[in-house]
Amino acid sequence: MAPTKIDTYKYKVEPFDDDFTGRLSWSVLGKHILASAERHAGARGFDRLQRDGHRYLWVLSRMAVDMQRWPRLGESYAISTWVNRYYRYFSDRCFEILDGDGHILGRAFTIWAMIDSETRRPKELDTLLGHTFDRYIDAERPFPKTSFSRIKIKTERPDMKRQTFYSDIDENNHVNSIRYIEFILDTFPKDFFETNEVSRLEIAYNSETLCGDELSFYISRASAGTYHFTLRKNTDTRPLEGETVCHSLVGFKPTANISNQSV
Amino acid sequence: MAPTKIDTYKYKVEPFDDDFTGRLSWSVLGKHILASAERHAGARGFDRLQRDGHRYLWVLSRMAVDMQRWPRLGESYAISTWVNRYYRYFSDRCFEILDGDGHILGRAFTIWAMIDSETRRPKELDTLLGHTFDRYIDAERPFPKTSFSRIKIKTERPDMKRQTFYSDIDENNHVNSIRYIEFILDTFPKDFFETNEVSRLEIAYNSETLCGDELSFYISRASAGTYHFTLRKNTDTRPLEGETVCHSLVGFKPTANISNQSV
Repeated sequence: MAPTKIDTYKYKVEPFDDDFTGRLSWSVLGKHILASAERHAGARGFDRLQRDGHRYLWVLSRMAVDMQRWPRLGESYAISTWVNRYYRYFSDRCFEILDGDGHILGRAFTIWAMIDSETRRPKELDTLLGHTFDRYIDAERPFPKTSFSRIKIKTERPDMKRQTFYSDIDENNHVNSIRYIEFILDTFPKDFFETNEVSRLEIAYNSETLCGDELSFYISRASAGTYHFTLRKNTDTRPLEGETVCHSLVGFKPTANISNQSV
Repeated sequence: MAPTKIDTYKYKVEPFDDDFTGRLSWSVLGKHILASAERHAGARGFDRLQRDGHRYLWVLSRMAVDMQRWPRLGESYAISTWVNRYYRYFSDRCFEILDGDGHILGRAFTIWAMIDSETRRPKELDTLLGHTFDRYIDAERPFPKTSFSRIKIKTERPDMKRQTFYSDIDENNHVNSIRYIEFILDTFPKDFFETNEVSRLEIAYNSETLCGDELSFYISRASAGTYHFTLRKNTDTRPLEGETVCHSLVGFKPTANISNQSV
């Protein structure tokens, strides 16, 4: 029997999974995207690897998320995921976020590398996974081509700084990759989310942030509703404005919510 | 048929529900405690009320949590909850946190008031809920008597300050009650959680924090492993050191984890 290439995980927007407007919060959706990836890989035995005394882990290199609609409190939703290809150091994984009737709410495209847990360096996937990986690749399933924007920052001074703490750190001992986007959304005033919602997210990770590191946020408005971000760490104590942690883009669209339209 | 007084909700420590040590994180347990309360009340029609054009909501006034053991990544757990009594403005709600075999992992005791969503003032529960509430009260089920400590702060200067943002705000338009405890745990260095785990939490809420408010943390060590906290808001812009937001206690015990015992 041919192995299944795609799995679908069911979720529900439980109380306190939503933001103050009643929409599913990014922190919960992002966590469920990562958890779906881990469960899918785990079910096929390639969520982590042990080879010649080395431990290898997947790390997220890039992510792009397009949301047509955010599910609301009490709504059921599901995340389907599959691996779409791999090439040298990287593997592409796709996600569809579906409503209770199976209609598309959004999509996520991610690029992952497998790193040595000690040296933190990537290893060629062909060497690590070889042809055992091939039968799980679904290159046929249609998915919109995703490209990443070039992030242009016009400011030389950080717009905001933020320290990192215990609760920001995940099992990999660094700031969780989903948390950066939570921090990025937190640079907007709360009222902005009453009339706007996230329609596009992009993030490219450059280096890890450890607990206690201070993040500096450099923000530029690229066009109406679209913002570019560069996050650097420890800009005070390092020359040349600190080390780049990630580049990101957030696109908003006006909220088309019935309850908000009634004046 | 007599109505059921207690409900049990099943959960699992999914990937990224844990902290860096692999234990269920407080933010997820706390959210599930609140969500269990809301689901239990909702199933019985008293999660919110509409009376004479006024909307009434439950607000958490106090909470005490005792954890014997924190479930770990991949483990199933459940939360049982019931209302134990009500008196004038307040209602006591109990929780048991159980492992996959139904053994006690911990307990939570909470005190709630029902407030007018506009005036934010509490109303007598007898008037609001009357005898429809009586049949859901389980006063018989045994639960250890919970008392709250008197919080003594020896310092006059805040040990830490922290701003609040969009992602801290819940549907009630204020900082989520679980988030304060996340902030409080963040005042400890990450390494501390490698050898210690939370065994006791207490929190008493005094006033709401709105988005953008700055919280000041006043911290005193009460005894070995036990810390007292007072959080005040906007201490810079208000006289008399700002308004008190909450008082809290956190007790730790050494982690008795096999993987940590091996040196």
